[in-house]
Amino acid sequence: MNIEEQIWEQVLKVRGMSPLVHSITNYVVMNNTANALLAAGASPLMAHARSELKEIVALAGALVINIGTLDENWVASMLRAAAEAQGRKVWVLDPVGAGASSYRNQVLKDLLAFRPSVIRGNASEILALNAGIKSSGTKGVDSTHGVSEAQHAARILSETVGSVVCVSGKEDLIVWGEQTLVVDNGHEMMTRVTGLGCSASALCGAFAAVAPDKLFLATGAAMSLIGVCGQLAAARSAGPGSLQMKLLDTLYNIEKEEFLNTLKVRNA
Amino acid sequence: MNIEEQIWEQVLKVRGMSPLVHSITNYVVMNNTANALLAAGASPLMAHARSELKEIVALAGALVINIGTLDENWVASMLRAAAEAQGRKVWVLDPVGAGASSYRNQVLKDLLAFRPSVIRGNASEILALNAGIKSSGTKGVDSTHGVSEAQHAARILSETVGSVVCVSGKEDLIVWGEQTLVVDNGHEMMTRVTGLGCSASALCGAFAAVAPDKLFLATGAAMSLIGVCGQLAAARSAGPGSLQMKLLDTLYNIEKEEFLNTLKVRNA
Amino acid sequence: MNIEEQIWEQVLKVRGMSPLVHSITNYVVMNNTANALLAAGASPLMAHARSELKEIVALAGALVINIGTLDENWVASMLRAAAEAQGRKVWVLDPVGAGASSYRNQVLKDLLAFRPSVIRGNASEILALNAGIKSSGTKGVDSTHGVSEAQHAARILSETVGSVVCVSGKEDLIVWGEQTLVVDNGHEMMTRVTGLGCSASALCGAFAAVAPDKLFLATGAAMSLIGVCGQLAAARSAGPGSLQMKLLDTLYNIEKEEFLNTLKVRNA
Repeated sequence: MNIEEQIWEQVLKVRGMSPLVHSITNYVVMNNTANALLAAGASPLMAHARSELKEIVALAGALVINIGTLDENWVASMLRAAAEAQGRKVWVLDPVGAGASSYRNQVLKDLLAFRPSVIRGNASEILALNAGIKSSGTKGVDSTHGVSEAQHAARILSETVGSVVCVSGKEDLIVWGEQTLVVDNGHEMMTRVTGLGCSASALCGAFAAVAPDKLFLATGAAMSLIGVCGQLAAARSAGPGSLQMKLLDTLYNIEKEEFLNTLKVRNA
Repeated sequence: MNIEEQIWEQVLKVRGMSPLVHSITNYVVMNNTANALLAAGASPLMAHARSELKEIVALAGALVINIGTLDENWVASMLRAAAEAQGRKVWVLDPVGAGASSYRNQVLKDLLAFRPSVIRGNASEILALNAGIKSSGTKGVDSTHGVSEAQHAARILSETVGSVVCVSGKEDLIVWGEQTLVVDNGHEMMTRVTGLGCSASALCGAFAAVAPDKLFLATGAAMSLIGVCGQLAAARSAGPGSLQMKLLDTLYNIEKEEFLNTLKVRNA
Repeated sequence: MNIEEQIWEQVLKVRGMSPLVHSITNYVVMNNTANALLAAGASPLMAHARSELKEIVALAGALVINIGTLDENWVASMLRAAAEAQGRKVWVLDPVGAGASSYRNQVLKDLLAFRPSVIRGNASEILALNAGIKSSGTKGVDSTHGVSEAQHAARILSETVGSVVCVSGKEDLIVWGEQTLVVDNGHEMMTRVTGLGCSASALCGAFAAVAPDKLFLATGAAMSLIGVCGQLAAARSAGPGSLQMKLLDTLYNIEKEEFLNTLKVRNA
């Protein structure tokens, strides 16, 4: 089976198994993240009370931690949940705003200690995250860093932390040690809808839950699904309001033929 | 006036009186819950600061408490608000995730002590809630429990707590002691939009606010309105993104003839 | 250049400069507020952790504080952020629910001490805010107060606090000392979508960020943009669900000719 067929198989697996995805995520995107999971066939569960995290982590198929609107109280919940998940459940880290404050950088360093199964961020975030774990110290985020530099940082991060690392952008790179998969889908208008990166991370959780032993493929499949559906939806949308709506419809409806005809993946 | 006509009369009453509905609800659904209330003609107010709960509860026509993303701090606000509401205002409890953790079960037990006017949940939640108040202890939630078992649990819960109890699902049961009303509307696609159950609970608050002395009818009318509008909207929707949008449009636009032609209610 | 042309110039400036707008706002509207900023060409950033506020305020072009779902913890963040912004960055205050509780009134008094650059609220809120700063004490909010009374209160507020004050409603008044600009756009259906006032305040932040020395014009331009786009979107919408979606599409797409043909502004 070629890589495209393998990816489609994962899409069907999520629909068939409807994995329960536990998210501790930011306030801005909770609604559309939950809707993206539902449209793709998964089941969202948002919970952060420390009194119940042990039971909730045990109940769910995967954990997704997104630090977007972090504060001191939520960080305590994130660390508790990550500690519960480590070694027991696959978990995804979305380092929103890495590099924007020293507080975020410190929190991310603490979270990395629990070795996320998958990390997904944009190029700036992955570069900041990598800089943060180097003993040589960070030099801040340079948004002019190109894709190749981000790929290099992702590889180091992957090898140091032991995670599959996804750098999303015009092209999405999925990096696992020396392997890199490139997904060349998506649409520029997607950057004008809040939280589609966060939705991508949530989907990474859903796909990881149904293939915990194939996280490189699972992450590639999650990014392929949102990239293909976003691209198709954007082409039919008058603007970002329509795009948010049609993305959900497309996640729900996409069929094999259109998916495979649109998908552009390659090894790099 | 037959039951269908009485229900429509309640829909018009909400539009005409525009009740202020105070919600302490979960982060995921705050936006679409507020929009559902506005589309149906009510006025949403979300507030949880303990410093102002006494005044806000006094200001509003009804209180809705939804524990979806509860934590230790918000639970303190929920308990304070429930204490203010008891005996003064109608209030609705949505026991999201009852049975998913012992913490949720304990919080729900504490909230039930303030005797909600209306309880709305799915079959699993109502079963867990009922199990939680039995001295014989809970045996956990069994999702294979059928509607008849949920109806039995709802009746016990209704009689023990003194609430109208709604079990929502493929059919919605509204139970008040020995009376049961069945609403057979809705659409399977509604389960792929996050928080439509929460929107239903918020609408129960709006309808209870304008008919505090007819809570059985009010709850039936709220469930009828969202069931009919969701069913009509789903039939015109390509997927769950469209459904969320068209549900709001339909709540806003629905007229008597189409409503009565679609509504399927019966006593059981 | 006439006032309409000047306003359009500001719309282009936001699109061209893509200002970073830092919001500490309410849970209900975070998603659609972020989407409104993105659709208009700005960049949203939501952050409230006290450990990072100094850095985040420094990073952003403007700060927007909206007290909608305030609590004791978030208020501490709001006050910290306002203190950081005062004299360094333009900042916008949205006094949601002013007058609804004595706690809100006290918090607003504390926030006004940091002298917001712009204040935007509805007539009731502006009247309550003005009453709150008068030593003679407040007599509560009277929703029957007309526009002229609100205009009077806005002028006093503007002169006392040193802010541009916007009273939004059927007509929007922008008041700066003795100057008043009236924007006569918008549509009644906009009141049936949650948080469009909050979106307007967020846009005030974006426009203030790109014209910090022309805050009267900037505020007028922000209100013109959402008024014109909302009016056009509503005319094409079956209901409030469609309106939310089409408003975002229209913010993203609006071009000069249609904008100027729809805009109705005058000095008063």
